[in-house]
Amino acid sequence: MLHITALEKLVHEMSRLPGIGPKTAQRLAYFILKSETEFPERLSEALLRVRAEVHECPRCFNFTDADLCRYCLDVHRTDDALCVVEEPSDIMRIESSGAFRGRYHVLHGAISPLEGIGPKELKIHELIDRVDAGLRGESPVIKEIILALDADLEGDTTILYLAKQLQGKGLKLSRIAHGVPIGSDIDFIDDRTMGRALQNRVEL
Amino acid sequence: MLHITALEKLVHEMSRLPGIGPKTAQRLAYFILKSETEFPERLSEALLRVRAEVHECPRCFNFTDADLCRYCLDVHRTDDALCVVEEPSDIMRIESSGAFRGRYHVLHGAISPLEGIGPKELKIHELIDRVDAGLRGESPVIKEIILALDADLEGDTTILYLAKQLQGKGLKLSRIAHGVPIGSDIDFIDDRTMGRALQNRVEL
Repeated sequence: MLHITALEKLVHEMSRLPGIGPKTAQRLAYFILKSETEFPERLSEALLRVRAEVHECPRCFNFTDADLCRYCLDVHRTDDALCVVEEPSDIMRIESSGAFRGRYHVLHGAISPLEGIGPKELKIHELIDRVDAGLRGESPVIKEIILALDADLEGDTTILYLAKQLQGKGLKLSRIAHGVPIGSDIDFIDDRTMGRALQNRVEL
Repeated sequence: MLHITALEKLVHEMSRLPGIGPKTAQRLAYFILKSETEFPERLSEALLRVRAEVHECPRCFNFTDADLCRYCLDVHRTDDALCVVEEPSDIMRIESSGAFRGRYHVLHGAISPLEGIGPKELKIHELIDRVDAGLRGESPVIKEIILALDADLEGDTTILYLAKQLQGKGLKLSRIAHGVPIGSDIDFIDDRTMGRALQNRVEL
């Protein structure tokens, strides 16, 4: 109990952030109280501004502050290939690898019956629409779709569902490879990863 | 690089919080973007409100949203004893032990020549004034001062300094005991703590 309403309110709101428990929230709140005069104002303004300016790109559902996101607008990218990801933050991981120069589509999650997230809660309908619009000649034809979803149960379920929905549309459909991470020690690889790495071995 | 000014600004401000690196700040910023509509507004308001309403108690320098803090106002506490702490958050630790029912004085730090924090940067002058005001009969006489400062170099330095400043004022001056924490295994106690626990052994 802090016995100061405003301070307790700040601790309460801070502790709603992921990975921030009540103890950490309290430490952060005291830091904010003791910080230079402009910091709380600047953080407060940044919070309001991000909500006012940032929205989903209407084409790929990445976050953007413009009409379309920078990956949809980039004329140096091919329209042939589409990479499907769960979250906008996943795009950065793929971009920094430099191995993909096509367009993106963000699902905003993965199918998870336990959490009540079905296909309708995700941008799957919009993905099918993008493919169909290409087939109808209303937009550039998508020739390949790469599914870069998380390597967990929800990711796998979503991949199975998408594969069913997208079949028969003349697409090359793939998922990113699972295997031993570069630079890692074979000793520390778990059984399932090793099994997948052996199954998907690449001929030399 | 997020390539969205408002998002980058939020990540930048969040990463100024203690223990929040750029990666965590980015995760928090994405969480805020995806959160229910009112959350950023509520957090933003809580930040501004804490700064507007919470200030230092003019008597003990604890944080408060009233004229005097609740410990200075509490009529059930004795004026005889004063507990000196480094930070307002330390008061809660002492309060929840239930072992002290006197008044507090917050120094807002400890002497640290390496960080450029000398006695003048702390509420030491104000502490001496409180003691002197009691001696002059302008306020209740303080009979005992307990120094509950951190058990580190800065805390020890501050205790030495305060002991010198407060001597000759007819006070009982003490520091909280160092020793083996309750419930801990003797095997895991460090040498200095064990040394102190032996030195300050209590007769049965």
